[in-house]
Amino acid sequence: MSEHVRTLRVVGIGTGDPEHLTLQAVRALSDVAAVFVLDKRAETADLVAIRKRICAAHIARPYRLVSVDDPPRERNPTDYGATVEAWHAARAERLEAAFAELGEGEIGALLVWGDPALYDSTLRILERIAARGRLPLAYEVIPGISSVQVLCARHAVPLNAIGGAICITTGRRLASGWPEGAESVVVMLDGDPSFAGLDPDLTIHWGAYLGSTDEILVAGRLGSVAEEILRLRAEARARHGWIMDIYLLSRASQGSSFGSP
Amino acid sequence: MSEHVRTLRVVGIGTGDPEHLTLQAVRALSDVAAVFVLDKRAETADLVAIRKRICAAHIARPYRLVSVDDPPRERNPTDYGATVEAWHAARAERLEAAFAELGEGEIGALLVWGDPALYDSTLRILERIAARGRLPLAYEVIPGISSVQVLCARHAVPLNAIGGAICITTGRRLASGWPEGAESVVVMLDGDPSFAGLDPDLTIHWGAYLGSTDEILVAGRLGSVAEEILRLRAEARARHGWIMDIYLLSRASQGSSFGSP
Repeated sequence: MSEHVRTLRVVGIGTGDPEHLTLQAVRALSDVAAVFVLDKRAETADLVAIRKRICAAHIARPYRLVSVDDPPRERNPTDYGATVEAWHAARAERLEAAFAELGEGEIGALLVWGDPALYDSTLRILERIAARGRLPLAYEVIPGISSVQVLCARHAVPLNAIGGAICITTGRRLASGWPEGAESVVVMLDGDPSFAGLDPDLTIHWGAYLGSTDEILVAGRLGSVAEEILRLRAEARARHGWIMDIYLLSRASQGSSFGSP
Repeated sequence: MSEHVRTLRVVGIGTGDPEHLTLQAVRALSDVAAVFVLDKRAETADLVAIRKRICAAHIARPYRLVSVDDPPRERNPTDYGATVEAWHAARAERLEAAFAELGEGEIGALLVWGDPALYDSTLRILERIAARGRLPLAYEVIPGISSVQVLCARHAVPLNAIGGAICITTGRRLASGWPEGAESVVVMLDGDPSFAGLDPDLTIHWGAYLGSTDEILVAGRLGSVAEEILRLRAEARARHGWIMDIYLLSRASQGSSFGSP
């Protein structure tokens, strides 16, 4: 293994609309020699097509597409932390081996859906590889439009109440109660959302396939639209074979999205 | 007043790097006839210059720059909610009057620093104008890169702990205690940060003037770097005449940004 430093750019590419790319991301992609793709088994032909379209549009020279198979992952672990830890270690091994093929002076890119800082493991894996020190590695991060932002933009609503706190969390967490002190809660990674146990007077803004031509949006009083969301969600998942969705819950007084007197 | 619907685009422009613009924002600006600017008294020549540069680079036709004076605002109100309410009402009056000058078929743009959904009043004001119904109004929102994302990108750290919750809040709020259940807390709008009373073993990632050539970054154990941050902050504010900064606090176990075993 050579001793030169490999340079990687971690590029947030948004949620499925190729126009979510920033000018910074466009420039970052222009001169890369290789694009590394963590081949998530769940990733569908639709998403692969968008990624390919982005690369074809913005990488100005011939590039290598290096696909790195994702190690298998326990979906319903008894010890969540230890399972994620082992999975990250396995991914780091595979990615490190793939990065070794970057030549002297070549730059590689890792494309990340949404924003690299938000519920994505790429940065943790790179830090793990860097900390091991076997493969000298330098990387920079290009932020990208996240699904949280697209959800708010498409509904044209603010994320926060006036002067209020926002909690971004998982369905797993929300099941144990509304986060104290938060007026707004964004739920990501909710395998199968359960709205049971939540205040039906909350306002929900829900979106699926955000930014794509298949986008679905529903908003309203939770108690009034929860069933419709679950029905649309089941139908869409059956039709597409997969679903990515997210929702914002807010206290009813903020439901109108401006504080009426 | 004519009865035609005014079309407005609310465009997030990022935090000060003109390359934060998305391709969607670039397209949204290309054909606007007027750019409406809420003239924040705090906005400095630096920020005005960046905005002008963005307009000059991306608006493909002659456009009018319509400056709307911000109404005065009580900075230390006794009733925060009522004061904000009155201020929004006054801003809505002024903006509505400005929008009335848009001609039939013309499109206007409102440029918003960061992301329009995050701690910005533009969407509330537009909804207020739309709800009044005196000026028929249609608007769409183009998401932009927020300071939260640039902070994480420049430090190359994830926003969330693995499977963990994130709280985005204000300094005002944090003073009353660490948000229960959150592993990561982002503090925005912190007039003068006080780190007193916080666990010195928290990890802090701080940034000022993010995305600009004046960017300053500090990271480390809160107890070890708090004084340095306050000193750099005071120096920079004296030098520039203003400061915009933000910080991420995380539980020490997440400080390494990957869960070590």
